[in-house]
Amino acid sequence: MRILILGGDGYLGWATSMYFSNRGHEVHAVDNYFRRRAHREAGTDSLTPILPDLPSRAAAWKEVTGKEIAVTEGDLTDWDLVERVFREFQPEAVIHYGEQPSAPYSLIDRHKAVFTQQNNVINTLNVLWAIRDITPDAHLVKLGTMGEYGTPNIDIEEGYLEVEHNGRRDTLPFPKLPGSLYHCSKVHDSTNIHFATRVWGLRATDLNQGVVYGIETEETRLDPRLVTRFDYDEVFGTALNRFCVQAVIGHPLTVYGKGGQTRGYLNIVDTLQCVELATLNPAAAGEMRVFNQFTEQFSIMELAEAVRTAGRDVGIEVEVRHYDNPRVELEEHYYNARHTKLLDLGLQPHLLSETLVEHVFEVIGRHRDRVITTGIDPKIRWRPVHEAVSS
Amino acid sequence: MRILILGGDGYLGWATSMYFSNRGHEVHAVDNYFRRRAHREAGTDSLTPILPDLPSRAAAWKEVTGKEIAVTEGDLTDWDLVERVFREFQPEAVIHYGEQPSAPYSLIDRHKAVFTQQNNVINTLNVLWAIRDITPDAHLVKLGTMGEYGTPNIDIEEGYLEVEHNGRRDTLPFPKLPGSLYHCSKVHDSTNIHFATRVWGLRATDLNQGVVYGIETEETRLDPRLVTRFDYDEVFGTALNRFCVQAVIGHPLTVYGKGGQTRGYLNIVDTLQCVELATLNPAAAGEMRVFNQFTEQFSIMELAEAVRTAGRDVGIEVEVRHYDNPRVELEEHYYNARHTKLLDLGLQPHLLSETLVEHVFEVIGRHRDRVITTGIDPKIRWRPVHEAVSS
Repeated sequence: MRILILGGDGYLGWATSMYFSNRGHEVHAVDNYFRRRAHREAGTDSLTPILPDLPSRAAAWKEVTGKEIAVTEGDLTDWDLVERVFREFQPEAVIHYGEQPSAPYSLIDRHKAVFTQQNNVINTLNVLWAIRDITPDAHLVKLGTMGEYGTPNIDIEEGYLEVEHNGRRDTLPFPKLPGSLYHCSKVHDSTNIHFATRVWGLRATDLNQGVVYGIETEETRLDPRLVTRFDYDEVFGTALNRFCVQAVIGHPLTVYGKGGQTRGYLNIVDTLQCVELATLNPAAAGEMRVFNQFTEQFSIMELAEAVRTAGRDVGIEVEVRHYDNPRVELEEHYYNARHTKLLDLGLQPHLLSETLVEHVFEVIGRHRDRVITTGIDPKIRWRPVHEAVSS
Repeated sequence: MRILILGGDGYLGWATSMYFSNRGHEVHAVDNYFRRRAHREAGTDSLTPILPDLPSRAAAWKEVTGKEIAVTEGDLTDWDLVERVFREFQPEAVIHYGEQPSAPYSLIDRHKAVFTQQNNVINTLNVLWAIRDITPDAHLVKLGTMGEYGTPNIDIEEGYLEVEHNGRRDTLPFPKLPGSLYHCSKVHDSTNIHFATRVWGLRATDLNQGVVYGIETEETRLDPRLVTRFDYDEVFGTALNRFCVQAVIGHPLTVYGKGGQTRGYLNIVDTLQCVELATLNPAAAGEMRVFNQFTEQFSIMELAEAVRTAGRDVGIEVEVRHYDNPRVELEEHYYNARHTKLLDLGLQPHLLSETLVEHVFEVIGRHRDRVITTGIDPKIRWRPVHEAVSS
């Protein structure tokens, strides 16, 4: 299958590019290196020493496996680039990770808020337009986020809710309560994609993904040059990955507030499996499928305890510290999100275990001289500092 | 009250500016003249001969009434301009009409689709940021649209739905089914505004307005130079206004498809009343109120029949013609939208009557030599022409 991977230089994008290439698909990866630039501006970096650009990563991949990954360096808000890639590559599936992916980044200042929404909304709109006019049968596999739902007081369904109201019924988009302007941008994308499926007859799968953790995949293990990026700063690092680095370097675990915040989580190798299942079983024309893509729910304190326990086993003393919560979010709440559709397609979950955490410790240990500690403590606040409203 | 009116040069914006100024408020109107430019590009125009810019309109207003309307010519996506206006004027209420307001325009081509979403989402984001950082107590009165809801098979509530699901309850944003990329942009705005109220504690009222008709207000009648714009082309004209011009010039009424499409409608003088009620009774800090702003529901065929009947009374033979529907929409559907919150605040509706239609005919008659007929027939299609999917 001809698979276009947007955001192919990222944590998941690069791992996904290698995964599909390794399985015989024709892969074309596009990236504008936004995240590399944002790290340079902030003075932070990936823990893992990734090669400097997509061409060198593709060259290493070819050297190790003999397989080709085509690459384009460029920005999806640039229509000429999008049009050229679609016309030349004629993708059958479009896996779209190509967005500004950080909630804190979207709240650093007005400029970054506007950048986040403009970048994410417009590049997805360009992709929808390209599919519509150039490859109308291509299946869009779009990375959304479980954060689109927020924390409603009812069970979270997969994308739609069957509503009975005043004696009438309909199945409608599940109401969303996004908790950052980044999360809002993903809701905007979902709204636009739903329009494109209903009105233009496109086929799309919206993967509302949980928080991803883990550092290695089958392909990254083939050669040190094939490593994927691994972020642990407050902006781009995800909860468990951050905690693992904090544990290894002896930094207190940065629990925000009480730590009762509960979310869905999954291993990076399950992300690859989920994306493959969605891609090989495409949505019908006119359909926007929504899958909730995670394997387990944890509260932040449960994650912190898992890291502390794994630390104890390998002789690391882990301190858990409750920081003033820089976010505006419920710290104790109901959370029960359905996630059966990917299991029904055959997902075999790799659940979180001490062994996994200990292995992540070990890989982090190899790179610990690269750790930059300045980006670890939370500094980005959801509310302006002058704001006196209590949560 | 210091009232900032964004989009103050438009059909409703100019009428609103005069309305509040006439009632003793301090009014500042901002506009980037987008609609004037779009008309010039398309070779169409307002039926009414409006003055060439905001400064000349404000000068005429001052000459006629002795009252001042301050004006700024500029674009809300320009943060420096937004910041300057907020810092200097210190608004207590912000009435926000400043968006690309046409569904067909948003589907002319990719460039106009992207323009619509970028313009609408980013300028509202700038306004939210300005309120947050400069005038946090200011009340945002934002013009949304009933079109955000689409045509679900259940009763439409005012912004929120009480959900009971698997034995638990919550009140959540009403699910949206927007029918164009313009309507999607309004849904994006609602999502962002809801975030800004929940997380930053802003106060906002989202007015999900129906289709507005009518040509005169108390203030436009004071002097011919104070007339507001009146659009009747397929891009910017609204259903009843279009039909009235078509009737007067002897063009068949352009009913799209069967004409069973049902929507909420209101008279322009009721728009002014509703916006005043919302402004004088502001939302609480942290609250996003949603009002469904219309007074009556009609199907397109009911409107066409009303125009035909009014025509008969004044000796105009009106032909109703069913055009191939250029849109993708249900032509027969359930529609029942609640609209009690503005009535509860004191709205006194001006319902549609033959008298009104006949009066609109008369005003149109005065300007009939200005009618440009090329923009009347529907040419903008919701689906690409190559598209074979049936609706």
